[in-house]
Amino acid sequence: MKAVFKRKPAKGMELIEAPVPKIGPRDVLIKVSIASICGTDVHIYDWSRWAQQRFTPPRIIGHEFVGRVVKTGEEVTYVKSGDRVSAESHITCGHCYQCQNGSAEVCRNFKLLGVDHDGTFAEFLVLPEHVLWKNDSDIPDELATIQEPFGNAVDTVLSEDISAKTVLILGAGPIGLFATGIVRACGASLIILSDPNDYRLAIGRKMGAHITVNPKKHDVVKIVMDATKNNGVDVVLEFSGSSQALNQGLKVITPGGRLSLLGIYERMVNIDLNKEVIFKKIRIYGITGRKIFSTWHKTSRFLSSGLVDPTPILTHQFPLKDYEKGMKLMREGKCGKVILRVDG
Amino acid sequence: MKAVFKRKPAKGMELIEAPVPKIGPRDVLIKVSIASICGTDVHIYDWSRWAQQRFTPPRIIGHEFVGRVVKTGEEVTYVKSGDRVSAESHITCGHCYQCQNGSAEVCRNFKLLGVDHDGTFAEFLVLPEHVLWKNDSDIPDELATIQEPFGNAVDTVLSEDISAKTVLILGAGPIGLFATGIVRACGASLIILSDPNDYRLAIGRKMGAHITVNPKKHDVVKIVMDATKNNGVDVVLEFSGSSQALNQGLKVITPGGRLSLLGIYERMVNIDLNKEVIFKKIRIYGITGRKIFSTWHKTSRFLSSGLVDPTPILTHQFPLKDYEKGMKLMREGKCGKVILRVDG
Amino acid sequence: MKAVFKRKPAKGMELIEAPVPKIGPRDVLIKVSIASICGTDVHIYDWSRWAQQRFTPPRIIGHEFVGRVVKTGEEVTYVKSGDRVSAESHITCGHCYQCQNGSAEVCRNFKLLGVDHDGTFAEFLVLPEHVLWKNDSDIPDELATIQEPFGNAVDTVLSEDISAKTVLILGAGPIGLFATGIVRACGASLIILSDPNDYRLAIGRKMGAHITVNPKKHDVVKIVMDATKNNGVDVVLEFSGSSQALNQGLKVITPGGRLSLLGIYERMVNIDLNKEVIFKKIRIYGITGRKIFSTWHKTSRFLSSGLVDPTPILTHQFPLKDYEKGMKLMREGKCGKVILRVDG
Amino acid sequence: MKAVFKRKPAKGMELIEAPVPKIGPRDVLIKVSIASICGTDVHIYDWSRWAQQRFTPPRIIGHEFVGRVVKTGEEVTYVKSGDRVSAESHITCGHCYQCQNGSAEVCRNFKLLGVDHDGTFAEFLVLPEHVLWKNDSDIPDELATIQEPFGNAVDTVLSEDISAKTVLILGAGPIGLFATGIVRACGASLIILSDPNDYRLAIGRKMGAHITVNPKKHDVVKIVMDATKNNGVDVVLEFSGSSQALNQGLKVITPGGRLSLLGIYERMVNIDLNKEVIFKKIRIYGITGRKIFSTWHKTSRFLSSGLVDPTPILTHQFPLKDYEKGMKLMREGKCGKVILRVDG
Repeated sequence: MKAVFKRKPAKGMELIEAPVPKIGPRDVLIKVSIASICGTDVHIYDWSRWAQQRFTPPRIIGHEFVGRVVKTGEEVTYVKSGDRVSAESHITCGHCYQCQNGSAEVCRNFKLLGVDHDGTFAEFLVLPEHVLWKNDSDIPDELATIQEPFGNAVDTVLSEDISAKTVLILGAGPIGLFATGIVRACGASLIILSDPNDYRLAIGRKMGAHITVNPKKHDVVKIVMDATKNNGVDVVLEFSGSSQALNQGLKVITPGGRLSLLGIYERMVNIDLNKEVIFKKIRIYGITGRKIFSTWHKTSRFLSSGLVDPTPILTHQFPLKDYEKGMKLMREGKCGKVILRVDG
Repeated sequence: MKAVFKRKPAKGMELIEAPVPKIGPRDVLIKVSIASICGTDVHIYDWSRWAQQRFTPPRIIGHEFVGRVVKTGEEVTYVKSGDRVSAESHITCGHCYQCQNGSAEVCRNFKLLGVDHDGTFAEFLVLPEHVLWKNDSDIPDELATIQEPFGNAVDTVLSEDISAKTVLILGAGPIGLFATGIVRACGASLIILSDPNDYRLAIGRKMGAHITVNPKKHDVVKIVMDATKNNGVDVVLEFSGSSQALNQGLKVITPGGRLSLLGIYERMVNIDLNKEVIFKKIRIYGITGRKIFSTWHKTSRFLSSGLVDPTPILTHQFPLKDYEKGMKLMREGKCGKVILRVDG
Repeated sequence: MKAVFKRKPAKGMELIEAPVPKIGPRDVLIKVSIASICGTDVHIYDWSRWAQQRFTPPRIIGHEFVGRVVKTGEEVTYVKSGDRVSAESHITCGHCYQCQNGSAEVCRNFKLLGVDHDGTFAEFLVLPEHVLWKNDSDIPDELATIQEPFGNAVDTVLSEDISAKTVLILGAGPIGLFATGIVRACGASLIILSDPNDYRLAIGRKMGAHITVNPKKHDVVKIVMDATKNNGVDVVLEFSGSSQALNQGLKVITPGGRLSLLGIYERMVNIDLNKEVIFKKIRIYGITGRKIFSTWHKTSRFLSSGLVDPTPILTHQFPLKDYEKGMKLMREGKCGKVILRVDG
Repeated sequence: MKAVFKRKPAKGMELIEAPVPKIGPRDVLIKVSIASICGTDVHIYDWSRWAQQRFTPPRIIGHEFVGRVVKTGEEVTYVKSGDRVSAESHITCGHCYQCQNGSAEVCRNFKLLGVDHDGTFAEFLVLPEHVLWKNDSDIPDELATIQEPFGNAVDTVLSEDISAKTVLILGAGPIGLFATGIVRACGASLIILSDPNDYRLAIGRKMGAHITVNPKKHDVVKIVMDATKNNGVDVVLEFSGSSQALNQGLKVITPGGRLSLLGIYERMVNIDLNKEVIFKKIRIYGITGRKIFSTWHKTSRFLSSGLVDPTPILTHQFPLKDYEKGMKLMREGKCGKVILRVDG
């Protein structure tokens, strides 16, 4: 089978011919229809500092996908051949303190698909039954593949009720843009989106942002305070991984407000905890992964009902062999989400 | 001044000429622009069993309104002449256990506007400063007057997060219809509205119900179970005050779901607690009044932002003197919300 | 092996010699050390109305226990021979909407141990790996066996924070008595326990009740209102299954308070929803089973740390063959929890 | 009257003879019985950087107290002469977004007693009625005065349910010690207290800490990980204001845990947000002041019921004139809470 392969601890990847993987009694063999590229995949290609610390070649990469079950192990009961599935990318242990206390997304023993387990940028894929998600028939393949990152956005937005709230979203990459659509669908009364990339801000306006700001051109703090009559926003959602953006966000949260953090920072972050967190009585939520599987249910409903239409974010499609074209666009910020057609 | 007056413990009311009320040091005199009729007002007119137990004439009635401040007591600091205000109808004590623990809507000593304190169906009104709400300039008078009952709907809907939930709304009176719009604005994925009045169901469709059911003609339980692939709904919102509707609702809540109760029943209600509540792990919220003033803020944002447009519910307007025409329509179920023009 | 067996749909049970059960690839064979008797087991013996509707003979009964793993299927990874285990009595499917949304205790497809699956009143027991709980080494066998019903009490008490709250506990059977100890350990400021059985009230005082009331002799409502200076209690925990007790509880909850329901009623219950729930803004939680496994972790900590010492509740021990003696005491209300020694 | 007075923007204070203050219509004159010294008062004396930025002399200082009402303004209804009262130190506006949304402790317009309004280190004090708290008759004066800082501890501990949790408390000043007692009373299963002051750790053991650690002598991270079998703690409560302690705390929180922050830092704090907050899915609560007045009710119940006995923390009493002796002990860390007798 064709697969995108990271062979060595150095920059680059290659398209190889690999054997179709074998399944164990609790495993499922899936024929991949569509995969999509995450920033993580680009980090692995580019062999960034994060990748050097976390990733051990050789490995087939990729973790977002939709496909069809083609074979099941003898102990599998949940799915059958022909089922159209996606999967939670955290292959969790099910038995640690975190798994047993509603925090499986921080399982102490999880393996990450496409990092610790051969991934989705391939014609076939093996996964244990318990991470599979059966797709709603109302969700087309192009949307089914993005449910995994969409779920990141769902958890960031809904770490508390967002309805009738004023919201600042920092970062308009694909997850920030998904979040914009979710915030709009869930009844926020004011949505301000900040990002230095005007191309992505334009998508953000289509997704429902009332105000978009380019912080390289305009004063984010002033714009937020003006738009809120100096009250500040109830909620800040941080997807940018920029400590400068984070500190702008902290400045404009209204006392008693909340901050949800998903973006990953280059280095440690300096925060004025007294002024911006303690004396303002702020709640902060670190977000990683998705709730397994309650977030998948919400995601599925947002997409199948049409409450959120992420079509404006799905800017490019390529056949699997052209995955490097997608990664190039992502590095340049000239795209939303990039989708790879694996099956044709 | 002109005022609608309940003189005696018997059916009926009358339009009288009354003296403009005096204010104390913490009070505010308000010139009423618009008032609106609540079912409570009709109960008082009709001298229902509830009214006989709760209401002591003589009294000017009415509790929904918008008006202008015309005079303030010497200790008043929050508002000034000219401010456009509405008011929380629960005149709370501020010092009881409930007021001090975030439950002022069940204050142990509250007086109800238009029941225990002269009301809003009059050209002038006196209220203590601490119950006043300064209206957002983006909300026209016709919407400002309905904020009080709209707030009932807000609290019923948002007793828990409603986003990506499936919802059954029982009862399509004005509050149930407001709730329909709120549920839609806050990202519910399926909204089913049940009421025996087709006129009101038609308004419900305009407010965003995906499915409307007339339980006199169709099987509510079957329709809900079909629409949810036999899963049942996550949320039931009960506005009807019908024990039959409530029991339909309990039947179709999915295990682990929640029920919020605002409708008032004719008599005690018989419930299969084992089967419908305990073995299904249901959460039930009794709702009365509104959170003071957090619900007012949410209400104001839903209306000022256009997230909820209640215009289809505001079916009739009359001058104050024709209040009985409005009450007649309400008894007949041939209206949504009825508004009374007081100032002209 | 020896086992307590319900052969026919009629009153009675018998001690039989049965074959040691076989295991599948995901199963575990356990040698039972201690089991304990639940009211459910007595219902099955007595062939009560509930039993007639829910239970299909033949079946080995019992669901509370502690034992040792003696054999594991080839796919089992979580436990190994020699591990000292108990188990969640709900054998859940893991894939339904409830299981995937944090409500596995109301799994749509669960099998109940000792009802739908051969139970713990036997020398050996087979269970699927995923329901097993590895016992903390600081918890002796006599306490390990009661973790399952103790968990019912944990969830009833902690459906909301109980610290600094005033609490009325209705029903002093074993679960109500466990709850009394938990409420005391978690910092409730006033604990009133009501039950018609003075023997059990005496145990309740040992578990930490500040006030105990026998409703056949004293006026529960008056005693609660006096003890709370007419404020009522913040929390009512209902374990009695008596509609009379429930209505006393509703009368004395302070407005804005909460009620948790675990007790099972003989028939439908008549409630004054207007007065006791809606106008008082009460929250009601139906409780069944336990959260899997977060409640087990709390239970284990309460018992292993000594925060709750349930010893006063463990009034009787018998060898397995004398199970009918335990059931007799339970019918007569002359015991707390009855333990059966299976291994000696 | 005698009063402790900060005259000039420089180090020092003085005991002066001042006029008894006048009251307005909504005000109350109180004769102070006992006051107690907060670290804030020492900062003001020492003219620290914080004091220089926040405090404007001249001003009578102090904000913790208990006293008797001796005179009431004509609009006062809540208290009467003879009532024994303490007060919330945040004199809130009641009308801002924060006050109206359950966050009065971060009122946009609050005045701080003893900082923006003449304080409690005086024989008489004037306060507006709405900040007064009527003391429970079961709480002696020595405990009534410490309810204000005790409330800080209550909110820090109870920002989420603490029962059956493992807890690390950083900082054993009076508030950290109050917190230790509260955590113990509310059913935490493991309490580890860290502070570089052995005198205060000894008090901490009396308040219920299971393990105390002096980080100058021992490795806090190792001790916590050993005590929790490498699981880490569920909860970290930060009272130290030491960024080193905070980072130790972040290291040992179990993934999915929570951190509550009350301690104030010397400068901005550097945090590894990726590793310690985001990838661990941590919730952080900034805490300031107390919830008005729900926290006062909890505080009163903890103290009046005996659930928390803070006596070991109340190490020193002086007459008001010797306030500098108390401040000296506080600078040296040779005390718990220092109480000033004002009335004799």
